[in-house]
Amino acid sequence: MAATTAARGGVDLGGTKIQTVVVDGRNNVLGEARVPTPTSGGPKDVADAIAETLLAAAAADGIKTQDLRGIGVGSPGAVDEATGNVSSAKNLPGWDGTYALGPRLAQALGTEVKLGNDVQVAVDGEFRLGAGRDYKSLLGVWWGTGVGGGIILNGKPWLGRGAAGEIGHVVVKRGGRRCPCGRKGCMEAYAGRKAMEARARKLVEDGRHTRLFKEMEARGRDRLTSGVWARALDHGDEMTKELLDEAVKALGTGVASALNVLDVEAVVLGGGLGDRFGELYGKEIQKQMLKSLFTSDNPPAFHLAALGDLGGAIGAALLVKKR
Amino acid sequence: MAATTAARGGVDLGGTKIQTVVVDGRNNVLGEARVPTPTSGGPKDVADAIAETLLAAAAADGIKTQDLRGIGVGSPGAVDEATGNVSSAKNLPGWDGTYALGPRLAQALGTEVKLGNDVQVAVDGEFRLGAGRDYKSLLGVWWGTGVGGGIILNGKPWLGRGAAGEIGHVVVKRGGRRCPCGRKGCMEAYAGRKAMEARARKLVEDGRHTRLFKEMEARGRDRLTSGVWARALDHGDEMTKELLDEAVKALGTGVASALNVLDVEAVVLGGGLGDRFGELYGKEIQKQMLKSLFTSDNPPAFHLAALGDLGGAIGAALLVKKR
Repeated sequence: MAATTAARGGVDLGGTKIQTVVVDGRNNVLGEARVPTPTSGGPKDVADAIAETLLAAAAADGIKTQDLRGIGVGSPGAVDEATGNVSSAKNLPGWDGTYALGPRLAQALGTEVKLGNDVQVAVDGEFRLGAGRDYKSLLGVWWGTGVGGGIILNGKPWLGRGAAGEIGHVVVKRGGRRCPCGRKGCMEAYAGRKAMEARARKLVEDGRHTRLFKEMEARGRDRLTSGVWARALDHGDEMTKELLDEAVKALGTGVASALNVLDVEAVVLGGGLGDRFGELYGKEIQKQMLKSLFTSDNPPAFHLAALGDLGGAIGAALLVKKR
Repeated sequence: MAATTAARGGVDLGGTKIQTVVVDGRNNVLGEARVPTPTSGGPKDVADAIAETLLAAAAADGIKTQDLRGIGVGSPGAVDEATGNVSSAKNLPGWDGTYALGPRLAQALGTEVKLGNDVQVAVDGEFRLGAGRDYKSLLGVWWGTGVGGGIILNGKPWLGRGAAGEIGHVVVKRGGRRCPCGRKGCMEAYAGRKAMEARARKLVEDGRHTRLFKEMEARGRDRLTSGVWARALDHGDEMTKELLDEAVKALGTGVASALNVLDVEAVVLGGGLGDRFGELYGKEIQKQMLKSLFTSDNPPAFHLAALGDLGGAIGAALLVKKR
């Protein structure tokens, strides 16, 4: 396992896609590869898909994975950084239990593998290389399938007992809509892609009309991806506008609550929906946020994530120390 | 200003009372004195009342204030620790502007004066000497006239940009009840003593019956103190039960949201209402909290504040370094 280059690998393991990169010592991307996340099978199938995709990213620059200094993986679920185990990754197939993802990948790829929480590594990437570079404290708001959060305080990730930054489950309405997590009134119940899709299906059952599911079928998808939402919005679909409006209000309220607790210097908005709709809705999210922000006369800076689609994987690569 | 003893002074400046203590080098209370906070006049009158009360606490142990190593003051409003200025202390008479409280007290008492945020110093007291001693991270929930919060992370206060821990303004219901702060749906709008009193007055205007205001008059008060609430509850007053029930639900929800962000090891409940009703309602607050807590299978420890009535003043005295 002796690394012969300064290059490192990074993996962003998402519910929709697996994005891998190989970066040099200065975090420039040397190669990248992406595949859809397996929707059937189990953890081993996901691990195999990760390994193959990383091999492809490395091969793009003629690198062997065993020559990498190491590989960082940003994973959903409960991540045990010490053992490399991942538990309860509910958006991944057959992953209700615990799987030794780190050891499995280390064996398959012949180099050290470090695991971290997917949102936290993406936020750390923005903090060290992207939109958060100018700040010592920030809140990353990862708006996607769920709504995740990553916290940097005094220049370091704040993880709490391991579950800090679960801003998707900040309550925006006591006794409100049921969240995919089972609780009521969470920000994610209104703003998470998965919850928004469930809400759209419910409204259609109740007789409402929408283009959303036609767009989904036209694009050969089986779920309402951020691209599907964008396309339906372009067509002026009323339900799409309505649900995005609800999401934006919930985001504003929930992020304000988190900021009233943390009072950090900056907010960085990322994630699948954040990347897709940040330009369009960023101002409105801030406007909604200011209504409930204690420091509304001196709000924190608000930025869109700057590292783009590869940000999660680049952030994951930062898990591997340079020396 | 040469201190001749290890003794220090502490002041808890509240909207209802001014509590002062003198403590020895081991934080044992040598003397204490308390007066009601002036309800008319301006900052200078409040400063004079503080100085007199501290002189009384010192005299109780035969100490001159100029012999104290220093005096710490926990103050409401916006506190500038560097200058000793206090601004916008809205629960104190005529204190909308800025007043140099620290310098004024230093002059009157002949020793160094350090200022801190009232809730933060009380929470720091619990962290260093009270219910939070066993933890490295905690959230103090100060349930009183408002609902304040104090945060300890990695053994140190987290102040953010100066306004961290404003948990009273975590939203529990988007678009909900108007808060004394002017925003809508804050936890404090349902759980703060001042907001609860406003709600009770509104319900009486609407024709509802309650013992609350009779108890207030019988006790010669002009507001619904925690003692008045306790007395009305003892008499089985329905409105009192109802409003305390609402407060407890809001506290549970708001504290859960804050914990979903911070994931600290422990919660400490204090403040005027917290000290008064913690024993009775602590279990129910936790039950409500668990409904919205992301780590409901592994919740943080929950404790009532242990330092009692003098906790705020003892915590303030900790602002003065021993050496």
